Amino acid sequence: MTNGHHSDHPAASGAAAQHTGDTYQRFLTDLFGAIAYGELSAFERMSSDARFSPTLHDRATLGRLAVHEYAHFELICARLSAMGADPEEAMRPFQPSVDAFHDRTRPADWYESLMKFYVTDAISDDFYSAVASRLDAETNSLFQGLKATEQPGEILLGRLREALADDPRLASRLALWGRRLVGEALTQAQRVLMERAFLGGLLDGEGQGAVDAEIKSLTAQLTRNHSKRMSLLGLTA
Amino acid sequence: MTNGHHSDHPAASGAAAQHTGDTYQRFLTDLFGAIAYGELSAFERMSSDARFSPTLHDRATLGRLAVHEYAHFELICARLSAMGADPEEAMRPFQPSVDAFHDRTRPADWYESLMKFYVTDAISDDFYSAVASRLDAETNSLFQGLKATEQPGEILLGRLREALADDPRLASRLALWGRRLVGEALTQAQRVLMERAFLGGLLDGEGQGAVDAEIKSLTAQLTRNHSKRMSLLGLTA
Repeated sequence: MTNGHHSDHPAASGAAAQHTGDTYQRFLTDLFGAIAYGELSAFERMSSDARFSPTLHDRATLGRLAVHEYAHFELICARLSAMGADPEEAMRPFQPSVDAFHDRTRPADWYESLMKFYVTDAISDDFYSAVASRLDAETNSLFQGLKATEQPGEILLGRLREALADDPRLASRLALWGRRLVGEALTQAQRVLMERAFLGGLLDGEGQGAVDAEIKSLTAQLTRNHSKRMSLLGLTA
Repeated sequence: MTNGHHSDHPAASGAAAQHTGDTYQRFLTDLFGAIAYGELSAFERMSSDARFSPTLHDRATLGRLAVHEYAHFELICARLSAMGADPEEAMRPFQPSVDAFHDRTRPADWYESLMKFYVTDAISDDFYSAVASRLDAETNSLFQGLKATEQPGEILLGRLREALADDPRLASRLALWGRRLVGEALTQAQRVLMERAFLGGLLDGEGQGAVDAEIKSLTAQLTRNHSKRMSLLGLTA
């Protein structure tokens, strides 16, 4: 993913100069809290859904992906603690929106659950990549480390392709489900961004107009990448 | 746990001489298959139930215990593969009885689920310890390694004590639940032992009488240890 648009923007250099302020620390605590709670929830949902896998092999594979989510959760919590923040305090504000997302997107079967991880894990990764370029070097390298430890997207893509080849009737159902997932994910993400004035820490000193423009541009980018991933499955976003 | 009874038994030395035979290899494949499927199931159940924890701290703790179960699952599968066995083939025969155990012991709430892991994890450990003394050195050290990597019993004991102190009315419900759990666990374990002639590989050349006596003695031992663990909670087994 290229961040060309962001690094060309004057705000980026302005924000980069303020990596030590209180606002930036609050922003990081929020960011890590949101990611940590997202990872913990993904771990629980993924390992619960693993049980409904059609084969033992699929159960083991999904279990392994879930365990990676837990490892990420622990890494982020360790970073929060190192910053002097309480990981549970940091996660709490994001609990309602993440839980609401999961409540509104309950998979009807194992294939929908596979699709859910394929879509949401990638959107989260895109989101982190988009903000990472604006963050301090230490945080940036933490994010790079998280991305390097696993490739769930590849595994999920392969398994979904296999499922779609086995049963072509799945295609229309999963295409519909993918649209619903991305809609809910973006709605919840925007809610979090607004409620917590999340981007304030990165766009310090700029007006609400700049924040709104950033949200709009980020949303467009996430949607474009989602469409590309659906195309890889032969589905229309 | 002492294995004095077993090592005094003439059968032990007889079995120890046959660690390379086909019967012993089949026994090991069965044993590892049963353990692996048990660990995979425990991982899935524990991480699903974690979601209903009263606090984020509890969720993280239960998640960590679940991840340890998965690590054990992977170790056992690696050993099966190294022996030239297919882990999925090895697990399959034990799927119905393990699934039946879980279906018959659905926790009504988070405290029952905590109790379930406390009771069943310990019974499994006792069972492995009881057979470990009869196995080849490599398998024995694999089991020792599994035991060394975590102490879920201590963590669960501490958390259950805290819950019982907070709400003394839990005691009678959890005591009843503990009795049900141990009953179901032993019933399923005996079924597996019988159906798969599980101990045959260790008691090669001895009659059905010797096998029955071993099962009886093992059951008595598991029950005694269970009672001690219930006492640690101030509950009657």
